[in-house]
Amino acid sequence: MKIDEAVLLVQSQLTTKRFDHTMRVAQTAKELADLYDVDVKKVDLAATLHDFAKDFPVEKLKQVLDKSQSPEDLLLYNQELWHGPVGAYLLETKYGITDTDILHAVRFHTTGRAQMSKLELIVYVADYIEPGRQFPGVDTVRNIAQNDLYEAAWTVARNTIQFLLKKNALVYPDTIDIYNDLTRRLFKSN
Amino acid sequence: MKIDEAVLLVQSQLTTKRFDHTMRVAQTAKELADLYDVDVKKVDLAATLHDFAKDFPVEKLKQVLDKSQSPEDLLLYNQELWHGPVGAYLLETKYGITDTDILHAVRFHTTGRAQMSKLELIVYVADYIEPGRQFPGVDTVRNIAQNDLYEAAWTVARNTIQFLLKKNALVYPDTIDIYNDLTRRLFKSN
Repeated sequence: MKIDEAVLLVQSQLTTKRFDHTMRVAQTAKELADLYDVDVKKVDLAATLHDFAKDFPVEKLKQVLDKSQSPEDLLLYNQELWHGPVGAYLLETKYGITDTDILHAVRFHTTGRAQMSKLELIVYVADYIEPGRQFPGVDTVRNIAQNDLYEAAWTVARNTIQFLLKKNALVYPDTIDIYNDLTRRLFKSN
Repeated sequence: MKIDEAVLLVQSQLTTKRFDHTMRVAQTAKELADLYDVDVKKVDLAATLHDFAKDFPVEKLKQVLDKSQSPEDLLLYNQELWHGPVGAYLLETKYGITDTDILHAVRFHTTGRAQMSKLELIVYVADYIEPGRQFPGVDTVRNIAQNDLYEAAWTVARNTIQFLLKKNALVYPDTIDIYNDLTRRLFKSN
């Protein structure tokens, strides 16, 4: 899929507000790709497609999840986590995306996971720090992202878990996995 | 094993300081067992035995873990988590403890896990709130423990994860499991 087609495709699926967010994520992701020496075109495509299923009605998300090979336990967690796997599944089965790295970036952009590729990490971080995001701590991550992609992603994971704990919400196991994985990478010991 | 034998056994394995802690955990656990209608004798035995392997040298913990059926990934986490599984393994294979509930209480008293029994929760909470413990938040958990065992255990799990995140430490997956499990129980939605 070419980038122009991807932009038109997601524009047809998303609200204007979400589409604008998507374009900012793509721009941020391209800057990070340039900085961290990752294929800018692939990153652009992954970032453009990351929220493909974000504005689906919950029932449709559930239907697609049921027939996809996504882990069944996802249905036991917040529906906020469903659009990544649903998007990846549809992009692969209906829109001919075959690049595993791009599909993983879409699938795991909300939860994270252990052993993310640099491309996946870039989409994960860009989604958190794109210029439209405004919440406590985001500027710190923006600064870290200029120096260390792994530390930036680690901070996103840690902030996310702390945010979920504060509001007594569930923490999906993949999110602990990315936190632990990057903690090991950054701090060596435990 | 009778309680007198258990006390003598752990006394032979532990430093005086750790043994005193153990006796306070047992006393606290018995009070909770009485409050929450759990077999006081079984709780006493489990609490008395919970730190059986706590003062083993790290090399011995590692040796026993290697030959036990404990999940291999434990070795990738802080050694602080090893004495529970090691204690449970030795109590079962060398000291004739057969009660699964008691063995689980020993095995999981540091990490927690999903679907803990009331007996397991009591040991988990008692270990955190015994009168010798002094750290921010412990009095809150002491108060909650008088009213709701599940909420007390949930608070222990949540505090533990927050503590680990603050010091950039790894979080063992079982600890997220107990937190998620009790979050579901207490708050229904996510």
